[in-house]
Amino acid sequence: MTVTDSSNSSRNPAPGGGADRLDKINPFRVMTVMQRAAELEAQGRKVIHMEVGEPDFTTAAPLVAAAKAALDAGHTGYTPAPGIPQLRQKLAEHYQQNYGVSVDSARILVTPGASAGLMLLAHLLVGPGDGILLGDPAYPCVRNFIHLVQGRPLLIPVGPAENFQPTVAQLETGCDARTTGLWLASPANPTGAILDRGRLQQSCDWANSRGLHVLVDEIYHGLHYVDDMPTVLEVDDSSFVVNSFSKYFGMTGWRLGWIVVPEAFVEKANILAQNLYISAPSMAQYAALAAFEPGSREIFEQRREAFRQRGDYLRRELAAMGFGLAEAVQGAFYLYADISRFSNDAEQFCQQMLEKEAVAITPGTDFGEHRARQYVRFAFTTSMENLEEGVARLRQALGQT
Amino acid sequence: MTVTDSSNSSRNPAPGGGADRLDKINPFRVMTVMQRAAELEAQGRKVIHMEVGEPDFTTAAPLVAAAKAALDAGHTGYTPAPGIPQLRQKLAEHYQQNYGVSVDSARILVTPGASAGLMLLAHLLVGPGDGILLGDPAYPCVRNFIHLVQGRPLLIPVGPAENFQPTVAQLETGCDARTTGLWLASPANPTGAILDRGRLQQSCDWANSRGLHVLVDEIYHGLHYVDDMPTVLEVDDSSFVVNSFSKYFGMTGWRLGWIVVPEAFVEKANILAQNLYISAPSMAQYAALAAFEPGSREIFEQRREAFRQRGDYLRRELAAMGFGLAEAVQGAFYLYADISRFSNDAEQFCQQMLEKEAVAITPGTDFGEHRARQYVRFAFTTSMENLEEGVARLRQALGQT
Repeated sequence: MTVTDSSNSSRNPAPGGGADRLDKINPFRVMTVMQRAAELEAQGRKVIHMEVGEPDFTTAAPLVAAAKAALDAGHTGYTPAPGIPQLRQKLAEHYQQNYGVSVDSARILVTPGASAGLMLLAHLLVGPGDGILLGDPAYPCVRNFIHLVQGRPLLIPVGPAENFQPTVAQLETGCDARTTGLWLASPANPTGAILDRGRLQQSCDWANSRGLHVLVDEIYHGLHYVDDMPTVLEVDDSSFVVNSFSKYFGMTGWRLGWIVVPEAFVEKANILAQNLYISAPSMAQYAALAAFEPGSREIFEQRREAFRQRGDYLRRELAAMGFGLAEAVQGAFYLYADISRFSNDAEQFCQQMLEKEAVAITPGTDFGEHRARQYVRFAFTTSMENLEEGVARLRQALGQT
Repeated sequence: MTVTDSSNSSRNPAPGGGADRLDKINPFRVMTVMQRAAELEAQGRKVIHMEVGEPDFTTAAPLVAAAKAALDAGHTGYTPAPGIPQLRQKLAEHYQQNYGVSVDSARILVTPGASAGLMLLAHLLVGPGDGILLGDPAYPCVRNFIHLVQGRPLLIPVGPAENFQPTVAQLETGCDARTTGLWLASPANPTGAILDRGRLQQSCDWANSRGLHVLVDEIYHGLHYVDDMPTVLEVDDSSFVVNSFSKYFGMTGWRLGWIVVPEAFVEKANILAQNLYISAPSMAQYAALAAFEPGSREIFEQRREAFRQRGDYLRRELAAMGFGLAEAVQGAFYLYADISRFSNDAEQFCQQMLEKEAVAITPGTDFGEHRARQYVRFAFTTSMENLEEGVARLRQALGQT
């Protein structure tokens, strides 16, 4: 097994800029896909979008109504840096009701998107030179936030054999003398893979025995299609959580997330929140209060069921075509598909599917280095009709008609 | 003249956290004032709030209506990372119409608040060890963003003699071999001081001759009470600007700002935007489109006139009481008042005013180190009636009845 210290990669420096760490931050390849897709659409072609990590549903009506009511009530000013107390209380209740864990609302900070939550936690937890263990593939911004605070992402290559989640044996091998943290994601992007309760517990136990902090990205919680979906707080109260209203709650454009930190880090986290972003958007916080009403929950569950059906359909069809896939969709709205039967160059493969058949998907190279050219990510964030059209086009492109 | 390298200060480390730079980030003293004010209010006392840097006006009706229309139209998703094109175009027109400068909209990136803009620019421009010249006093987050990217804030002490803005002679003295940038603010917080066109030009010329980048915080533009309020882009097209919809446009809680970068930095800035925050809030961007309608402008100008009247009144009354003040309010909604006739301890003075008379103001120690205990900041972000009440209470507290 090879562990890659990705801080060694380099690119051209920004003109005149003094910040070397930017050399390690790459643009997302999916942006190239999206730009070319937009060009094709401008030429009149219909593109099937399976590249975008954003639900196709607009925000649910009860949340929109709550935002409008908040605007009418004049809630247009800053809120306290960690969020309005009633939303933090709702989140504490959410942990109690849905996971059976008791979390003091003082430990929950509402953030302007999970991005800001990750940024805050990176500043809170990672010093220059600190090694942070994380899976490869993974959501690319996580690696980049670690670079931005001068930390060292220690990438653990994961594949189907490990259900795309690092094992304790791999972590043990990847850990060096200056490793200070373990960052996990479950369900993960781009794979949808879930770390089951037993493995989650083992990972935390191992990290605690090493004195490492544990951070878990839980932003796809709610969008899971397995029976048991534990938060890390159930197995390790000393861990850090980042979560979001974007995915299950369908609030991407509102920029709202939250983090949970241990009691001892509350004060520092609050100071960072004040400095980094003052507060999360006010009307988004009031809108989110309505997310915990039964009527909203019903809408979210209907949407989850739609995602489940789409994922099952797409997985079955792609597997029949010869894409390498896990046996079931576990979570999120992604399929991470092995294309080695068709190509050894994911970027070229994505380009070909787009040019030939106007099907937009994301190359694995956006998510890491481990076998990245052998994988592509399909997002089932479009209608069943579009997925069916996409499947037909892929068959055409692959000569399977 | 003494130049302070504020990176030498230190505090206790976060428990278990590996990030030493946090030791340089202090909580805002104003938070203590606000918490105590809330306690007094809970006891039934009426507090006169002159501590808060936020307009008391809610967001103007045309902007709220535009946000609601955007919600109805389903604009609840992510936008492009640098913002919706139509808003960037409006901002380009804003520079043309109000300042007579031509700025390509590609150089304008919409950000989730000026905070995110400053964060992005800190990552773009400041490497570890880089010295950044800035005035003392100044908005504290600026210094903290520099700390967070491992730069060195080089604080130039400024006072009434320099109109609270650094002179070229001071910059020359303060510049060291590893200085890479000059960060200015005009109108400035906490002083409201404006760098006039001649001095702005001189500062840029000096920085350019030294090979330093120039960044100007222009978030209080529009709230100026002088005839000539140049943007730095008029005198130096190679400079960086951070601006906001929070103050003049009255959109604090929406979290919306923008930055302007030179052409050569556009690509790197876009990559950082994608990584740091994905996009600014969608509905805030659509709301902001309405800010450029004539009806909205009229509201903003009425509010500016209200701020002017409040500022003039408060300056006159405070000066009559013996506070040391500039001869006129130049910009923003702040008065930075010398209290040396009453006290040599601004924090104690603020505490006394709050306990004795329930008047909330901010100690100078939130804004830097230079003579900070000799100053307090008054924000005239409350009604004229409240200001009159505040003045009467201050007279009482100071034994001037």
